[in-house]
Amino acid sequence: MSNPYIRIAIDCMGGDVGLAVTIPAAAQFAQQHEDVLCLLVGDKEAVASHLQRHRGPDRAWYEIIHASEVVTMDDSVEVALRRKKDSSMRVAAQLVKDQLADACVSAGNTGAWMAISRYVLKTLDGISRPAIATSIPNQKGGATTMLDLGANVDCSAQHLLQFAIMGTALASIVDKQQSPSVGLLNIGEEVIKGNEVVRQAAELLRHSGLNFYGNVEGDDICKGTVDVVVCDGFVGNVVLKSLEGLAKMVASMLREEFTRNSLSMAAGLVAKPVLSRLGHRVDNRRYNGAALLGLRGIVIKSHGSADAYAYGYALQRARDAVNNGLLTGTTEAIDRLRHQLETQNGKELPLDTQSEPAL
Amino acid sequence: MSNPYIRIAIDCMGGDVGLAVTIPAAAQFAQQHEDVLCLLVGDKEAVASHLQRHRGPDRAWYEIIHASEVVTMDDSVEVALRRKKDSSMRVAAQLVKDQLADACVSAGNTGAWMAISRYVLKTLDGISRPAIATSIPNQKGGATTMLDLGANVDCSAQHLLQFAIMGTALASIVDKQQSPSVGLLNIGEEVIKGNEVVRQAAELLRHSGLNFYGNVEGDDICKGTVDVVVCDGFVGNVVLKSLEGLAKMVASMLREEFTRNSLSMAAGLVAKPVLSRLGHRVDNRRYNGAALLGLRGIVIKSHGSADAYAYGYALQRARDAVNNGLLTGTTEAIDRLRHQLETQNGKELPLDTQSEPAL
Repeated sequence: MSNPYIRIAIDCMGGDVGLAVTIPAAAQFAQQHEDVLCLLVGDKEAVASHLQRHRGPDRAWYEIIHASEVVTMDDSVEVALRRKKDSSMRVAAQLVKDQLADACVSAGNTGAWMAISRYVLKTLDGISRPAIATSIPNQKGGATTMLDLGANVDCSAQHLLQFAIMGTALASIVDKQQSPSVGLLNIGEEVIKGNEVVRQAAELLRHSGLNFYGNVEGDDICKGTVDVVVCDGFVGNVVLKSLEGLAKMVASMLREEFTRNSLSMAAGLVAKPVLSRLGHRVDNRRYNGAALLGLRGIVIKSHGSADAYAYGYALQRARDAVNNGLLTGTTEAIDRLRHQLETQNGKELPLDTQSEPAL
Repeated sequence: MSNPYIRIAIDCMGGDVGLAVTIPAAAQFAQQHEDVLCLLVGDKEAVASHLQRHRGPDRAWYEIIHASEVVTMDDSVEVALRRKKDSSMRVAAQLVKDQLADACVSAGNTGAWMAISRYVLKTLDGISRPAIATSIPNQKGGATTMLDLGANVDCSAQHLLQFAIMGTALASIVDKQQSPSVGLLNIGEEVIKGNEVVRQAAELLRHSGLNFYGNVEGDDICKGTVDVVVCDGFVGNVVLKSLEGLAKMVASMLREEFTRNSLSMAAGLVAKPVLSRLGHRVDNRRYNGAALLGLRGIVIKSHGSADAYAYGYALQRARDAVNNGLLTGTTEAIDRLRHQLETQNGKELPLDTQSEPAL
């Protein structure tokens, strides 16, 4: 019998702030969604104490799952994985593994969260490396799904193909995009074109049966030229952070200019509703919640510095993924592609069949 | 006897628009700077015809240098280099080579401009690969020098060190920054740290005698954490274009929000002076003009889509580089570093002593 609730395991201790963000966010989220059960993982007394301040809805909306250790932002992957076997991260991932939770969420140390969830849950058949994917608002009013954002620094063409498959699954299943188009991030045609790996990946993608658009450039991310942008984790991470940096600079310049003198401040008052609307549109808190794709379970990473409002979006992302069947969808997409390629040209799908060992 | 003028060779045919941008920009620039002589390279009749509409100052401010061919935006490097030996690009670079010009500027095809200027001018001793550098406005009110932006896709640690030396020379000589700090673009500490090349480059930089800050992340570009950000050309190109894309999206959203209805439009009118000031601060036309560093001559690349206003900044960049002695400054910086490293640890400077063959 399937559980009537969507059970989300929350690493309550993770993130720059921890409990003071995760508990109010969970309470608020449970208030908004009657079908959610929060599995609050962390030090049981500390969790209980925060729950007194943030009561949530009048129903049994949570369970506390005790974990005696915490992975800090500075812990190495080694320490997180081998020395803290009862960390709130590890326990949250294990709940998914044991089918006691449908998804897990953490705002903690990305490297550790990736390593732990991969170690506990393992990768899907055909996927050798998980990838981190997120949505970036674009000029068309929608969002561009981008991956990998830092899980994999050195990637082969096969890895990029796998990212494309997983990104397509995420965009079509969670964001309900019909046959999402996929672009391969490359540099301008005018400059010497791309590197060898990107060229090979384009070749694989052309024969993949995915809706491959071709190469895209950096500015296509915000233009919304394609639904899914694929790149290696080094490039993806640098681009994402560069965009965050520019967004912050523009926001700070807006503040500066509208408070420069009393005339500017008056103009700012008049323009406030317009600026608020703009602020809402580019508020990156609404895009919080990256998916760790390619694992045998739904794993979401919240920004470490997320506030309760932003953390709510990460929880939303987890709920949507469960509701829309991301896991089976991704598995099916990989199988379908494998079958298609085999019948198409008698070739094996160029996906690794063996997972690489976890870190 | 040194020439009393700063002679700038201008590829008048290059860019998305060509003459209708380059001629008015040159005329305007000569008007502003009495010490400038423009060598207008291109089809002599077409140039003369445009000059009738844009007369410039009342002095002998230009010479027309005929070139019978034009490198188009779509020409391959091969075609540009081997089949169009009398292109306006090639002639402009040759003027610098022959010491008939102090600098050259083109808004044409970047790959071709890089290949031609490298072929004609050759690289400096100790530099195996030229790099493209530009300035990006930062939150501190200054600009961050970033390189490489697309000349080199696959880089070794030695190449990144060379970029750091050239970027330091550019920032200290042209932008007059005292002992500019250098950051190596990398991904978050929380994620698996960087790739092997970046790690090796950090090691070289630590012993280089440059003002090496350490690793920086994407958001440090706009924060202005360091004066010079070094990365390979693939990453640099993608980041630069991503930032352009976001800037355009924000500008278009601002327009949209301030014209949504009559109330918004009224607010826009009131806020106009503030928005104009902001617009001026983030106007990327003011940052037009990338330097092709590491060549035996001053070579500037304007954005292909630059208008006359933006093109003027590229000309300004050329004039500043000549005025401040960028070429001798860069050469001296490389020699100094070489000497320092030799006396420091008896080691050879890990710079390639032989130039790689031009394309």
